[in-house]
Amino acid sequence: MRNVLPVGKQLLRLSQQPYKKGAVCAASAMSGNKFRLPDRYNAQPSVWVEYIQLALEHKPLNLGQGFPDYPPPDYVTNGLAEVTTGENVLLNQYTRGFGHPRLVNALSKLYSQLIGREINPQSEIMVTTGAYEALFSTILGHTNPGEEVIIIEPFFDCYEAMVQAAGGVARFIPLKPKKTTGTIMSSDWVLDPAELESLFNEKTKAIILNTPHNPLGKVFNQQELEMIANLCKKWNVLCIADEVYEWLVYKPYKHIRIATLPGMWERTITIGSAGKTFSVTGWKIGWAYGPAQLMKNLQAVHQNCVYTCSTPLQEAVARGFELELKRLGQPDCYFVSLPQELEAKRDYMAKFLSDVGMVPTIPEGGYFMIADWSALEKKVNLSEENDRWKDYRFTKWMSKNVKLQGIPPSAFYSEPHKPLAENYVRYCFIKKDENLQKAEEILQKWKASS
Amino acid sequence: MRNVLPVGKQLLRLSQQPYKKGAVCAASAMSGNKFRLPDRYNAQPSVWVEYIQLALEHKPLNLGQGFPDYPPPDYVTNGLAEVTTGENVLLNQYTRGFGHPRLVNALSKLYSQLIGREINPQSEIMVTTGAYEALFSTILGHTNPGEEVIIIEPFFDCYEAMVQAAGGVARFIPLKPKKTTGTIMSSDWVLDPAELESLFNEKTKAIILNTPHNPLGKVFNQQELEMIANLCKKWNVLCIADEVYEWLVYKPYKHIRIATLPGMWERTITIGSAGKTFSVTGWKIGWAYGPAQLMKNLQAVHQNCVYTCSTPLQEAVARGFELELKRLGQPDCYFVSLPQELEAKRDYMAKFLSDVGMVPTIPEGGYFMIADWSALEKKVNLSEENDRWKDYRFTKWMSKNVKLQGIPPSAFYSEPHKPLAENYVRYCFIKKDENLQKAEEILQKWKASS
Ligand SMILES: Cc1ncc(COP(=O)(O)O)c(C=O)c1O
Ligand SMILES: Cc1ncc(COP(=O)(O)O)c(C=O)c1O
Repeated sequence: MRNVLPVGKQLLRLSQQPYKKGAVCAASAMSGNKFRLPDRYNAQPSVWVEYIQLALEHKPLNLGQGFPDYPPPDYVTNGLAEVTTGENVLLNQYTRGFGHPRLVNALSKLYSQLIGREINPQSEIMVTTGAYEALFSTILGHTNPGEEVIIIEPFFDCYEAMVQAAGGVARFIPLKPKKTTGTIMSSDWVLDPAELESLFNEKTKAIILNTPHNPLGKVFNQQELEMIANLCKKWNVLCIADEVYEWLVYKPYKHIRIATLPGMWERTITIGSAGKTFSVTGWKIGWAYGPAQLMKNLQAVHQNCVYTCSTPLQEAVARGFELELKRLGQPDCYFVSLPQELEAKRDYMAKFLSDVGMVPTIPEGGYFMIADWSALEKKVNLSEENDRWKDYRFTKWMSKNVKLQGIPPSAFYSEPHKPLAENYVRYCFIKKDENLQKAEEILQKWKASS
Repeated sequence: MRNVLPVGKQLLRLSQQPYKKGAVCAASAMSGNKFRLPDRYNAQPSVWVEYIQLALEHKPLNLGQGFPDYPPPDYVTNGLAEVTTGENVLLNQYTRGFGHPRLVNALSKLYSQLIGREINPQSEIMVTTGAYEALFSTILGHTNPGEEVIIIEPFFDCYEAMVQAAGGVARFIPLKPKKTTGTIMSSDWVLDPAELESLFNEKTKAIILNTPHNPLGKVFNQQELEMIANLCKKWNVLCIADEVYEWLVYKPYKHIRIATLPGMWERTITIGSAGKTFSVTGWKIGWAYGPAQLMKNLQAVHQNCVYTCSTPLQEAVARGFELELKRLGQPDCYFVSLPQELEAKRDYMAKFLSDVGMVPTIPEGGYFMIADWSALEKKVNLSEENDRWKDYRFTKWMSKNVKLQGIPPSAFYSEPHKPLAENYVRYCFIKKDENLQKAEEILQKWKASS
């Protein structure tokens, strides 16, 4: 795997390189390396591929990947069953490429209300294979070779790869904690305004804003959003708002959609996910919305990539939204009850991580928690692992020896900034109480062991 | 829409241009055309977008798009209902990115048997968002800027756009009919061997082979496949085998997988579709298989485009294959009964098209039929439409005035070769008998009218 080098040397050796050379298939039966990966792609397996494999091999309690280990709402899965076996046999066949009519209509109703303007279901909304493909269509549809895209660290790891695939240049800025002891909230992680401003220039095409944030749980506040919005307007820059956790916000915080800020609708593409919204990550239905002239670019990418998304899944998601639209903001609305349920899980996890000596950052949104494990370094034998970054070594050692799995957050940083993440681990808390209790027991037992 | 120019001038004006400039958004609120579509994409709506709109407006009997208007097999849709509401709640959550384990295992069993070699489910198979995304991952993962990809005309229209998105150069060769009167079989449409050979050169990276063929229904025979295989081996070229209609072959024809020819496994990526296999086009689950070192490139593209496909759909497709694997080749196997059912529909359509004066090409596979309508030209008023190509004018006029919709096959040709398709229309015959009878009545009534 990765070599272990002192950080200084690593940084020297790596510096910022927008393109990584594809792996050459030495064993190819075909002559030469004619079939090597094009330069715009990265051959390295993602952290997900590596850590799913790790989990398969060592069978830890898995708090790594972000999905619930308990059932989604009944009406959602029953809805899908009804759609596929129902009277309308066409619901198992191709539907409109840019989005199933019933789903784009439901999304239009919902977001017109939330954004405070009429959103056209045909031209201002597009349905995608998960928020993932919405990110892909947005980034590939709006980045020309050489253009710069600003990415806030830590970041959902595909952002960088997608900018690279477009021939763009990713420019990174880390969120940094204002404090590292006591109770740390995700709002304590902030951008340096001067540093952010210094990244904007004539070549800047877009900035990617993820709020509520994975993995920090940060819910960007009005002032922070205004700072970003003002720079976007000043430099005529597109804002790509990844808001897949829009409903997962804890009291008293409020999710603010940057598209609602003055002058921002015209320059924002907002991305959402049915997987996150209805706790069915395996359905892979997402969407993007924004002004028609910006959406056209996404359509051109989507049309020649997947062309159309699953009809029965789209129909079932549409029915789910129709139901929730009737009870929006009421206690029985899933978008109200789910964050309530999760808030208790968040508090439970924060407590047991603290009890064992880690320092968690309390998230204001999302279902991830990062924690600083450095006080426990003497209890892990990092030299048994040979990954380059300490958080990789920590998480692997823990999976194998303590049987609890987290994700190394340096996966969410650019190469030069990975050292910023070395003391952290990311855990997911959308897990049944039983499993959170097990995690607590595992850690307590480990703490008690010599 | 398109301008009407004499063919000679059209050809002159268009000549082969690998890149088309993206549309500029003049109405953009954002300054200049900073947000225009990157050059690698094409802003033109595809023929599908245009013709679905046409159908919505004029409500013709729609024999355009390729999907059944009757139910898929019960066990397939019931299977999906059971998966999503079943005990294993994880089947609604993320699964392995390169393919759900149960599905890649089933595909490995099936294709190991059909190809006659052990196919590794982990490294030699990848599941995608429809065959469409498999084509995307293959073409984008194997085409460097400037490399050439040979495309046989008529072709499934996304091939050209995908090569363009990769920065590659598409080189076209048309299948041409050996005869144009009497009974024409799709085997009468052939490649000129010398012309094909002349397209291969040092820059040739891949050839896309679609068999059974959409829209001609041609099932490439042993000799034709050997000719292609020999050129691939001679020039060290990748073969992209789009075999989505692999089970839809009519007696006495046989589908031959080019990956089974000597020396071809090493250089072939074969693509399949659950939508076509189980008559659920709306599910959008597809796959690609081939040698691991070629598949790695597809993984790199997929990983940063959609990352993973729908879990419940993959699980349901896997269960479908497990059932069919037990009765492969037997009369109750869906892969045996479906083509039998379709053969009768094919013969019925061929007869009523001939009766009305069109000259159909009888397909040996697939569920499309093209027909030469030029003998009926006096019965249509093409001057009422102003599309550039006659087949667009014919199909639009028919949709509006006769209320029967087909697809203009020139959409499946490169610009300079579109005139070859002007006398044809494509109809789909995977429609309930009732609707095929209606189509016959519509045409008979039209023929009888003055
Ligand atoms: C920030 C963020 N964006 C996008 C996605 C992808 O969402 P989907 O599963 O809908 O593709 C995720 C998934 O974890 C995420 O955390
Ligand atoms: C030749 C060909 N390839 C690929 C596809 C796409 O298949 P899917 O719906 O699985 O994406 C089609 C669909 O019509 C097709 O005709």
